[in-house]
Amino acid sequence: MTISTQWFQPSDIPQLFESTVGIEKESLRLDNQGNFSQHTHDSGGLGGRDYHPYIQTDFAEAQLELITPPLKQNQDLINWLAGLHQITAAAYPEDLIWPASPPAKLNSDRDTIPVAKLSNSKEVAYREHLVQVYGKDVQLVSGIHYNFQIKPQLVHKLVGSRFPSFIQATNQIYFELGRRYFRYRWLLTYLFGVSPYVDSTYESKLFGTPPQTIMRSIRQSRYGYRNANSINIDYSSLTSMIESIEKAVNDNFLSLEKELYRDVRFRGGQKVRDFLCQGIKYLEFRNFDLNPFTPYGITKDQIDFIKLFLISLLFLEGETDDASVNLGNRLNQAVAEAHPQTPCPDLEEGKLLCQSMREVAQVLKENSQIDLLPLVEKAEAALEDSKLTLAGQLINECPDPANFLAWGLEQAREFKQGYQKRPYHLHGFENFELSTQDVIKEALKVGLKLEIVDPMDNLIKVSHQGHQEYIRNGNMTAKDSLISYFLMENKVATKDILKEAGIYVPQGQHFNEIDEASHYYPFLPEQGFVVKPKNTNYGLGISIFKTLPSQSQYRQALEIAFEEDNTILVESFVPGDELRFYVQAGEVLAVCERQPAQVVGDGKHTISQLIDQANQHPLRGPKHFAPMTLLEKGKTEALQLEANQLSFESIPDKDQVVYLRENSNVSTGGLSIDRTDQVYDDYNAIAIQAAEALGTTFCGVDILIKDYTAPIKQTGDYGVIEANFNPAMSIHRFVGQGQDRYLGRAVLQELFPELTWPQ
Amino acid sequence: MTISTQWFQPSDIPQLFESTVGIEKESLRLDNQGNFSQHTHDSGGLGGRDYHPYIQTDFAEAQLELITPPLKQNQDLINWLAGLHQITAAAYPEDLIWPASPPAKLNSDRDTIPVAKLSNSKEVAYREHLVQVYGKDVQLVSGIHYNFQIKPQLVHKLVGSRFPSFIQATNQIYFELGRRYFRYRWLLTYLFGVSPYVDSTYESKLFGTPPQTIMRSIRQSRYGYRNANSINIDYSSLTSMIESIEKAVNDNFLSLEKELYRDVRFRGGQKVRDFLCQGIKYLEFRNFDLNPFTPYGITKDQIDFIKLFLISLLFLEGETDDASVNLGNRLNQAVAEAHPQTPCPDLEEGKLLCQSMREVAQVLKENSQIDLLPLVEKAEAALEDSKLTLAGQLINECPDPANFLAWGLEQAREFKQGYQKRPYHLHGFENFELSTQDVIKEALKVGLKLEIVDPMDNLIKVSHQGHQEYIRNGNMTAKDSLISYFLMENKVATKDILKEAGIYVPQGQHFNEIDEASHYYPFLPEQGFVVKPKNTNYGLGISIFKTLPSQSQYRQALEIAFEEDNTILVESFVPGDELRFYVQAGEVLAVCERQPAQVVGDGKHTISQLIDQANQHPLRGPKHFAPMTLLEKGKTEALQLEANQLSFESIPDKDQVVYLRENSNVSTGGLSIDRTDQVYDDYNAIAIQAAEALGTTFCGVDILIKDYTAPIKQTGDYGVIEANFNPAMSIHRFVGQGQDRYLGRAVLQELFPELTWPQ
Repeated sequence: MTISTQWFQPSDIPQLFESTVGIEKESLRLDNQGNFSQHTHDSGGLGGRDYHPYIQTDFAEAQLELITPPLKQNQDLINWLAGLHQITAAAYPEDLIWPASPPAKLNSDRDTIPVAKLSNSKEVAYREHLVQVYGKDVQLVSGIHYNFQIKPQLVHKLVGSRFPSFIQATNQIYFELGRRYFRYRWLLTYLFGVSPYVDSTYESKLFGTPPQTIMRSIRQSRYGYRNANSINIDYSSLTSMIESIEKAVNDNFLSLEKELYRDVRFRGGQKVRDFLCQGIKYLEFRNFDLNPFTPYGITKDQIDFIKLFLISLLFLEGETDDASVNLGNRLNQAVAEAHPQTPCPDLEEGKLLCQSMREVAQVLKENSQIDLLPLVEKAEAALEDSKLTLAGQLINECPDPANFLAWGLEQAREFKQGYQKRPYHLHGFENFELSTQDVIKEALKVGLKLEIVDPMDNLIKVSHQGHQEYIRNGNMTAKDSLISYFLMENKVATKDILKEAGIYVPQGQHFNEIDEASHYYPFLPEQGFVVKPKNTNYGLGISIFKTLPSQSQYRQALEIAFEEDNTILVESFVPGDELRFYVQAGEVLAVCERQPAQVVGDGKHTISQLIDQANQHPLRGPKHFAPMTLLEKGKTEALQLEANQLSFESIPDKDQVVYLRENSNVSTGGLSIDRTDQVYDDYNAIAIQAAEALGTTFCGVDILIKDYTAPIKQTGDYGVIEANFNPAMSIHRFVGQGQDRYLGRAVLQELFPELTWPQ
Repeated sequence: MTISTQWFQPSDIPQLFESTVGIEKESLRLDNQGNFSQHTHDSGGLGGRDYHPYIQTDFAEAQLELITPPLKQNQDLINWLAGLHQITAAAYPEDLIWPASPPAKLNSDRDTIPVAKLSNSKEVAYREHLVQVYGKDVQLVSGIHYNFQIKPQLVHKLVGSRFPSFIQATNQIYFELGRRYFRYRWLLTYLFGVSPYVDSTYESKLFGTPPQTIMRSIRQSRYGYRNANSINIDYSSLTSMIESIEKAVNDNFLSLEKELYRDVRFRGGQKVRDFLCQGIKYLEFRNFDLNPFTPYGITKDQIDFIKLFLISLLFLEGETDDASVNLGNRLNQAVAEAHPQTPCPDLEEGKLLCQSMREVAQVLKENSQIDLLPLVEKAEAALEDSKLTLAGQLINECPDPANFLAWGLEQAREFKQGYQKRPYHLHGFENFELSTQDVIKEALKVGLKLEIVDPMDNLIKVSHQGHQEYIRNGNMTAKDSLISYFLMENKVATKDILKEAGIYVPQGQHFNEIDEASHYYPFLPEQGFVVKPKNTNYGLGISIFKTLPSQSQYRQALEIAFEEDNTILVESFVPGDELRFYVQAGEVLAVCERQPAQVVGDGKHTISQLIDQANQHPLRGPKHFAPMTLLEKGKTEALQLEANQLSFESIPDKDQVVYLRENSNVSTGGLSIDRTDQVYDDYNAIAIQAAEALGTTFCGVDILIKDYTAPIKQTGDYGVIEANFNPAMSIHRFVGQGQDRYLGRAVLQELFPELTWPQ
């Protein structure tokens, strides 16, 4: 078998591999005993099923359908599935997600298994119709649908040279790809088919109860969801296919076109006839059993392998026809209904298919960083040894059908633990900074459509019924103005504005030259002062002196600040606790006290060692990507220690608290303690007033307060030291003491007030 | 004389020197023959006198009053005066600004000199009253008022230790400073008094015509604006001063408190009695003649010297009293009425005052970068030699009173040339980027209150009757959203959004790794492509290839782009002219074609030499600070030349145009040609649509257009390549061909629609 260039060139292969895939994954929610969950879908606090793009119910109320958008990178599909599983598991904390396709245990009275309680009455009626014709059992068998769209530019490129029009190109390529898939999909069923067991009372209304033999894939056998034999579709041509589908509906063999269930579904129009005018847009492959060994129903290797398989089909020589489709269907049924340990029925064809994939993988490897050759080798090995197939493995792990329920529940429990791990991260989206993860999670929960515009910029787009909003870093949105951003970024400007609004800000000077700032030494306020760069948001370059430092210490602090900016501020120090107020649209949603980065002595270890120990904490990680930031051993820390006659090599006494910095930004290792309910309302009012003066919707106001439980009595009881245009939301969510405040949803509620927010 | 620490410490001197000064400068507008200008104030197209904070009329319609805000830096005062003079000179292009205090030529019929045509009838009535009591002549003598406020923190510091309350501190210090000023101001009159000549028909209604002798300062003599001798103010104490002023009004010797004309005016309340409750806020010194040798009526040296004089008065020993005030007044009158060449009347006291200033200047020099000792030395020299005083110099330059008019007009004409120089800069504000200069100029013209928030950030605040707006870099304002900024800054996001809005953008790919981008070589579009960094606004790092480059040329372009950003774009090249559309609030206000940086050969010089020559052009300067940017000899230029088989050492033929870059950004040396009136409206519509899709008010849209005079017929007739959140306005203002489009005012009109914009 050699690569045929009927349509594409080998040089197109890296681009072909950038074709998009979208995954739909059905699965049953069960209780801890393996019964269908009695929790309704709506009890999960997720957004409504009438619009939710990602989390739906399939046939039954307890049958989840998780849907990813079409994505270029296969790893992203796994990432999305990870996130959606985490969210779903949290929505139904008592439920297990059944990891396999067929149900291991069915209610003896099938009427007690409710179909999905949708608000759309037509959808409910359609499901009732399915019950009548096929029975509930076959509908409860879950699986994966794999939606594949060839990168459209590649099809466009063929117009002119190979095809007179785009519609002809797309229809011919997709229709032929569909037929080839029918013809050769048996290989995928052989490798990935994995539904050997089912509840013993299971039956298909049309084809009866499966014989008592174990088979590779009940789901893909005649006992799965299959239309009556009387429905005959003619795959001789696209037109004949369309006409035979229309005839089946017209003759009432099908209630709707969509009732036709085939392993390949051509997509792109409301009706199949639309293909003739609009062209086929993509293909939906529906023959994948849930892989019960993996928490998301499918692995990245499988997604990769299937994509490789599809691309290699595009390069096959010759054309298929209606007879090929029928032949393929027979082959596939034979593979599905065979015992998992029976050998590959057509080793030669299997090897040829693998050879074709190998050639494609070879080109891909040479022209990109993607190497799929090991996957091809694994498939080749499985061709020779059926024990290496998924069904073969399952039979081996769980040889007794009677143990299938227990085995599956065990898997489900293990996977559930995985879904519940690291709850402060949105699984699959860990590369985003924490606030963005929170916002994405809430968007996915409520069912706002999410697009990742630029992951490196933490830039996302969320939309709902034509209303779209872009969000950067969790709370930078269209609700704030460009100039507010510059005003808050510029501490000189911020101070001017707050002062003018009658808010107390510490007195200070700003300098553009280090010598000028140095000459200011005789005028330094004796009650303490702060040196900080004009533009910074993460506490970088800040030094705080509570007593008058030596001239050289002062000079060093100036140097540190000037490293961050051309202008620095020297301002008087306001003694007290530092509180961060998260203000949103004129309301304080959370307040926390912030303490500087610190270690606590044990009388044995050096400060340097204590820092290393503290950094082992599971919540500590790089700035913005973990709830708590790693402690550093930088210049500022050294200066701070020196000011207290310490060094990194000092050994503090047991229980001695050693502050590593004076500033308490979480981004430089600080700690936070929730104070939302304790803070006196006067300070909330100040924070709100500050945000208003700066004209901002999302704002973090830092206030030093002498006693935050008492009202403001005089000047100096508080001082606003900073306002932040992009307040970190995670510092309220992971607090050392007090209640966590979760702000991801609040941001979206501000942006989408028209949405009905669950609970 | 030694420094007394009655109030302040020597260590306070650098801070005292940061006390603010505000200047008010009156002057007469004359026609070219020296007659009073017949152009009304309102004909200048300036904002209305009922609110204008900077450009007003004083007594007469043709008597300008230019007002600076209070400023810490004396150089800033000169800068403001420079800007206000430039604006005023441009508003009355036919007029001259008379540089001296007394008018050299008065209309024989004084009724033909109109008083200021103000809309406020009380103000007009007050001026009519002044005419009745004092006559017009004395009111037409112009001068400088010098408003001085001690840095308030320094006064606050004294509360507790020296004074029981702030009001006592401020009142005592300012009142005593005022008295000392009365006592010793004769020195300033000796040095800076310079109004020896006046029209021969000049007279004071109260004191008659000056004797035919030339005197140092007619303005400060009894023949200047002076109240009747019957008005006697008692300076024994603040209270007695207040009471005697109130009595004078009560007895109808004065129509209003403000009619009291003394060289020191205490400021800070509506009525003088308010001082007792609110405290004196600052002092206004009104005894300065216009310095006719300088275009702005006063020099920085004078401002410095006066500030030094005032600070040294604060350190004088002992207290003054009412008698001191009277003594000072007599001395000052004697100095003013003496011939300019008479020696200093009290050399000893003069030297003592200079010695005191010297001591203050010495401390200042040691603790800051300000050295005023040379000014003290100059004053000491002038004490010994009256020819060195300003009046002495004027007498020397223009010995014949009959020539005073001609001499003054000559000065005025020379100064006018200065005001008209470099019209693309706002004089005194040259350190701001050009767009900000335009906006500031328009704000000053119309009379919006201007505050420089941060010159390094080009951040200003403009306000009018409680409505305030911040502006950064000319057009970044509250009208645009924070997220629009990030969307436009991110070219990947911009393209996505425009594409979704149905706007054609060139096809492309983005890459995060150079190797990945390098592997894309086989897929490069053959019809040409562009390599550019994801985030850039100034054309940095952009390479354009109109034909397929070699692999190494491509790699080099990638390296250049990756220097600017972590993500780069490779997108197909749209052939055509590049037009920049300046869109504001849904309207296209200007369009220009942009051509790349270029030199034109002469058959003799190398490209390198031609670049050096081109950079001599007076409009070329550093990026953003000159209408045209300097041409560079960087890597991008080298690569561009190489692509055309040229190098910096090649000698192009005569008239051969050599492009140094492919991109046409003005910031990389490009040229612009106005196309506002030629562009077909279809493209305006596209630009407006793009700005709308990005949700922005101020936006520069770059479109490549095949034929901008023809309608859009098909895809590819145009391609939007970029949108800019901070479009440079100067590229429309300084165009190589076509009409300049001045956008500074448009920005302000958008922000202040409530204002009545002149013309």
